[in-house]
Amino acid sequence: MSYPKIPLAQQVIQLVKAKGINHVVISPGSRNAPLTIGFSNHPEIKSYSIVDERCAAFFAMGIAQKLQEPVAVVCTSGSALLNYYPAIAEAFYTNIPLIVLTADRPKHLIDVGDGQTIRQENVFEKHILYSANLKQDLVVNDERFGKDRDIPSFIIDKLSGIDDKLVNFNQKEINKAINVAITKRGPVHINIPFAEPLYDTQQEFTEKITLLKPDFNIDTVDTTVFKEFIKNWNGANKKMVLVGVKQPNTLDKEVVEFLGNDESTIVFTETTSNIHHANFFPSIDKIIAPLTEEEFIDLQPEVLLTFGGLIVSKKIKAFLRTYKPKYHYHISSVRALDTFFSLTYHFNCRPNYFFNQMIQFVEKTKSTYQSNWLSKKAERADKHQKYLKRQLFSDLKVFENIIESLPNNIGLHLSNSSTIRYMQLFDNNPTIEQYCNRGTSGIDGSTSTAIGHSVVSNKQQVLITGDLSFFYDSNALWNNYIPSNFRIIVINNNGGGIFRILPGNKNTENFETYFETTHNLTAKHLCEMYGITYAHATDEANLKMSLKSFFKDNKQPKLLEVFTPRIINDELLIGYFKHFID
Amino acid sequence: MSYPKIPLAQQVIQLVKAKGINHVVISPGSRNAPLTIGFSNHPEIKSYSIVDERCAAFFAMGIAQKLQEPVAVVCTSGSALLNYYPAIAEAFYTNIPLIVLTADRPKHLIDVGDGQTIRQENVFEKHILYSANLKQDLVVNDERFGKDRDIPSFIIDKLSGIDDKLVNFNQKEINKAINVAITKRGPVHINIPFAEPLYDTQQEFTEKITLLKPDFNIDTVDTTVFKEFIKNWNGANKKMVLVGVKQPNTLDKEVVEFLGNDESTIVFTETTSNIHHANFFPSIDKIIAPLTEEEFIDLQPEVLLTFGGLIVSKKIKAFLRTYKPKYHYHISSVRALDTFFSLTYHFNCRPNYFFNQMIQFVEKTKSTYQSNWLSKKAERADKHQKYLKRQLFSDLKVFENIIESLPNNIGLHLSNSSTIRYMQLFDNNPTIEQYCNRGTSGIDGSTSTAIGHSVVSNKQQVLITGDLSFFYDSNALWNNYIPSNFRIIVINNNGGGIFRILPGNKNTENFETYFETTHNLTAKHLCEMYGITYAHATDEANLKMSLKSFFKDNKQPKLLEVFTPRIINDELLIGYFKHFID
Repeated sequence: MSYPKIPLAQQVIQLVKAKGINHVVISPGSRNAPLTIGFSNHPEIKSYSIVDERCAAFFAMGIAQKLQEPVAVVCTSGSALLNYYPAIAEAFYTNIPLIVLTADRPKHLIDVGDGQTIRQENVFEKHILYSANLKQDLVVNDERFGKDRDIPSFIIDKLSGIDDKLVNFNQKEINKAINVAITKRGPVHINIPFAEPLYDTQQEFTEKITLLKPDFNIDTVDTTVFKEFIKNWNGANKKMVLVGVKQPNTLDKEVVEFLGNDESTIVFTETTSNIHHANFFPSIDKIIAPLTEEEFIDLQPEVLLTFGGLIVSKKIKAFLRTYKPKYHYHISSVRALDTFFSLTYHFNCRPNYFFNQMIQFVEKTKSTYQSNWLSKKAERADKHQKYLKRQLFSDLKVFENIIESLPNNIGLHLSNSSTIRYMQLFDNNPTIEQYCNRGTSGIDGSTSTAIGHSVVSNKQQVLITGDLSFFYDSNALWNNYIPSNFRIIVINNNGGGIFRILPGNKNTENFETYFETTHNLTAKHLCEMYGITYAHATDEANLKMSLKSFFKDNKQPKLLEVFTPRIINDELLIGYFKHFID
Repeated sequence: MSYPKIPLAQQVIQLVKAKGINHVVISPGSRNAPLTIGFSNHPEIKSYSIVDERCAAFFAMGIAQKLQEPVAVVCTSGSALLNYYPAIAEAFYTNIPLIVLTADRPKHLIDVGDGQTIRQENVFEKHILYSANLKQDLVVNDERFGKDRDIPSFIIDKLSGIDDKLVNFNQKEINKAINVAITKRGPVHINIPFAEPLYDTQQEFTEKITLLKPDFNIDTVDTTVFKEFIKNWNGANKKMVLVGVKQPNTLDKEVVEFLGNDESTIVFTETTSNIHHANFFPSIDKIIAPLTEEEFIDLQPEVLLTFGGLIVSKKIKAFLRTYKPKYHYHISSVRALDTFFSLTYHFNCRPNYFFNQMIQFVEKTKSTYQSNWLSKKAERADKHQKYLKRQLFSDLKVFENIIESLPNNIGLHLSNSSTIRYMQLFDNNPTIEQYCNRGTSGIDGSTSTAIGHSVVSNKQQVLITGDLSFFYDSNALWNNYIPSNFRIIVINNNGGGIFRILPGNKNTENFETYFETTHNLTAKHLCEMYGITYAHATDEANLKMSLKSFFKDNKQPKLLEVFTPRIINDELLIGYFKHFID
C-alpha cells in the first residue's frame, strides 16, 4: 500500500475509516493529493472518481441516502468546493450525513494571490452542522521558504511542544465533526491545509489516532408532556397523522397496523413517505384540492401528529396553516420544523420508539372521521380512473402508463418539481421505495443522487425526471459507476411545463423564454456520449411498447425519453382537479 | 409594458436600471417572477434566459468582463442561488462587478419546512463585497393567513409608520450594494423576499425611487510615500515590473514606451496582461525555468512594481518569494495582495494615473539589467523554435499550430489549467485580447464566461480549452445566445493531462483514475445536441487543414476538437524545459 507522508492526511484518513465511513467520492486535484492517494489505496475504503464536484456531492448523498451511514467527499482547494454547496444544503435539510473534506493551502497562502485559493474556513456556515478548521502540520516543511524547505528558526522556536497540541487539536476536531454528522444526521465540513510536498508516500500509516466515540441520543420522552399528549390524543375524535419524507422500513408493522386501524385517525402519506396501509391516504392533493369550506372544517384535526422530513404537498400545508389543529406534536430525533405555525411540542426520539410507547396508552375512540374520509377516498379513486381513461397523451397519461409498468421491488427516484407532484396523484406500489431531494427541492442534483444510490443498492433503481432537471444535471452521467440495470425516464415537454400551471403566469409576455424556457433538446446525444441505450416514445402506443422491455436486463443502462405535448399538459392537469368538483 | 405589482420588485428593477445596469441574466423560477416579469419587459434592459445558475453567473461575468460595467443575475429561492457561488468567488478575486439578485420567501417561511427555502441572507459572506438583506413589503398580503390574505391585527399594529421606513431601508440597501459593486469592483448580493401573489402586473411603475450616487475614489497618491518610492526607484539599477491579469488598453502608449525603454527595468508580462512592447518579457516561465542560482541572484530586483490581477506563473512566484526584492510596491484602485511576502506599500489608484505621475520624476539609470536579459530572451526564443520544430504531435505542438493560425483582432479565452500554462510559453499577438478566469483559477466556468463575453463583443471570440474544463462546463452551451462566429478549440488528451506534469505523481497507484481521470469522451455529441458545427483533428496535417477555414464565417458556432496523445504530452513538456539547460 501507498499512504501519504503528511501526518495530518494520515490522521484524517484513519479517523474517517475508524468512524465507519466506507465510501469516499474524490474529485481530481493536486492540493488534495495526500487524501486521494491515501483513500484510493486504502483496502477497506471504496473510492469513486467524479470530476464535477456538484455531481460528486449529490452522488455521495445518494450513497448515504441508501446506506444511512456517512459518506465522504474529497476535493481540491478553490472554487472546487463551492460546487459542493447545493448538495450540502440538500443534505442539511434532509438529514443526510455528508462528510465534506476540502484540501486547502496553508494559511499564509490565503488571500495573497495564489491560484485556486479562496476563504475556505466556515464557508458553508449557514448550512452545515459543524465546521472543523484544521491547522497545518508544522513538522511538514513550509513551501514559503524556497527549494531547500528548511524550517526557519522563528518557526522552530514556536515548534517546541506545539506539535502534540496541534495533533490533539486536529484529531479532536475531526472526531467532533464526524460525530456530529452521525448523531445529528447532516453535513459537516473539515477543511484541511496541506503544504508541499504533496505527493510523498510511505508504505504504512505511522500516525497514531485517538478515537472519540459519539454521544448517541438515547430515545426518551418527557413523561409529563407524554401524559399530556396521551390525554389530548385520547380525548380527540379527529386525529391526523402526516408523514413526510421517510426512509423505508423504519416503522414496526404493528405500529402501521395500529395507525391504519384507528377509526378516529387519518394518516396522510406522500410518495416519499415509504409507509403503506389500505386505510392510509396516499394522495393528499386528490383529497384536498376539491374541498369546500364545509369539508375543510370537517377535515380539520384536533390533534396533528407528524414525523418524517419535509412535506411535498402545498395543498396540505395551506390547509393546515388555515385550519390549524389544536395541538401539533412532531416526532424526530433530529429536529422539528413548525411547518403549520402551530407546533405544541417536539418529541426528541425516533418515531418507531415513540409509537411503541404510545400504543400502550391509546384508548379506542368512537369516530366516523376515518370511515367518512375513506369513502371520499374511494370516490376520488373512481373519478381518477374515469378521468384518465378518456385523456389524450400528456404528462398525466404518461405517468399512469409508467406507474403501471414499474416492476416490483425497485427503488424509484423522482426529480423536482413536476415529476414528484404528478406522482403524488397516483397510489403507491408498496414494494417500491421512493426518493426525492426534498430538502431544498432543487432541480439541480436528482440524477446524480439517484445514480449514487444505485451504486450501492442490490435492487434496480429507476429515475423519473423532467427535461429541465435532467439537462441541468447532465454531468451526472460522467462517471464509470452507473449500473447496467439503472433506468432513466425523461419526460420531455420541451421546457419547464410546471410554470404553465402556476397562477396568472401564462399570459405574461416573454413567458416561454423566461419562465417555461422552451427548448428543442433531446437526451439522445447525451446517451450516445455516455454509453446509455436510448429509446423514445411520442404516443401512448409506442410508450407502452417501449416500457414492456425497458426494465429488462441490458448491457448498458437505459434511458427512455417520452415527448409530451407542451401546450396541453397543464390544461389536462387543471381539468383533472376540476373533474373532482363536477 | 407589464411590470410587477409588488412595490419592492419595482424598486429593485428601477434602481438596477438607474445605476446603469443594462444586462440581466435570468434563471427560471416562480419566486423570482416579479423580477423576471419586470426585467424581461423593460425596454432598456437586455435580458437573457439561462437555466443552469452555475453557467448563468459565469455568463454574466463574461458580459461584465467585456463591458467593464455591472451585470445582474436573477434567480429563484433555494439551492438555485448556491449554484452561483463558483462565479461569485471568481468575480470577487478578479474584481468584476456582479449584482446577484436572489428572490426569497418571506422571513417567517424560512426553516419551517417550505420547499425551495434555505438561509439566503449573507450566504455568500466570505466572498462578497456587500450583502443587502431586504425586508418584505408589509403592504403586500401575507400568504401565512390563508386565502383571503387579510393582514392580521398584530401585524397591522406594527405597520403604522413603518411602511416609509421600510421603503427607505430597502432603497438605501439596494443603492449601497450596487454602489459598492461599482466603486470597489466586485460581486454584491441583494436578497429580496417576496410574498404571494407573485404574478400580478400593472402597466407602469408606480413606485418612486431615490438614487444615491456612489462615492468614486479619486486617484491620488500619498506624497511622502511617493517621494520615497521615487528615491528608491531612481536609486536602483535593477527594477522589475510585473503585470498580472489586466483589461486591454488601460495604459497610455507613452507609459508603455517609457517602461519598455528603461534599460534598468525588466517588465514581465503574462498571457493575460494584455500589454505589449518589444522589450517586455512575455514568457516568464521560459526565462525562469532553466536558471541557475547565480542567474537567480542576477535577476533579483531591488525594486518590484506590480499592477493588475493575479499572477499565473508559479515560477515567478517561487522566484520572488525566495529572492525577495528590497521594496515591493503595488498599484491598484481596489486592493493589494502581498503575493511575495514583501509588500512595502499599496498605491491606491489606477496604474495609468500612477505611471503618468511617475514618469515626470524618473531619472535614467545606467544599467545592463534589461539588455542582459533581453539577450537571454532572444536565446530562449531561438531554442524554443528549434525544439518545437522537431517535436511529435502533442499538446505543445498543437498550441504552436493554433497560435500561428489565430486571426488578428480577436478575443481569446483560455481555460484553466494547462491551456493557460501552455499559452504562457508562446509570444503574444498584440492585436489579440486574452482572458482567463484567474480569480480562483477554477476549471468550472471558462466556457460560460467566454460565451457571455462573446454576446456583447463586436469582435470574434475564440475559446481554447482542455477536455476536463470543457466537459465540466458543458451546460454553457445550453442557451440561445452563442454568436455564429464564436469558436471553441477543445484540446482533448483524454483526461487531466496536467497531473502528469506534477511532481512524484505518475507512479502512484490509481493515478489514471483519481488524478488524470481518463475518459474516452468526445465533444461531438454535445455539438450535435446544441447545434454547433463540429470538426476534429488527430495529427498535424489535418489540424493545419482544419484551422485554415475554422475562423471563417459559418451559419453556426464551430468547435474543433484536437485529440492529442495522452502519454507523451508531459514528456515533451518536461523535455521542453530541459532543452533550455542542455
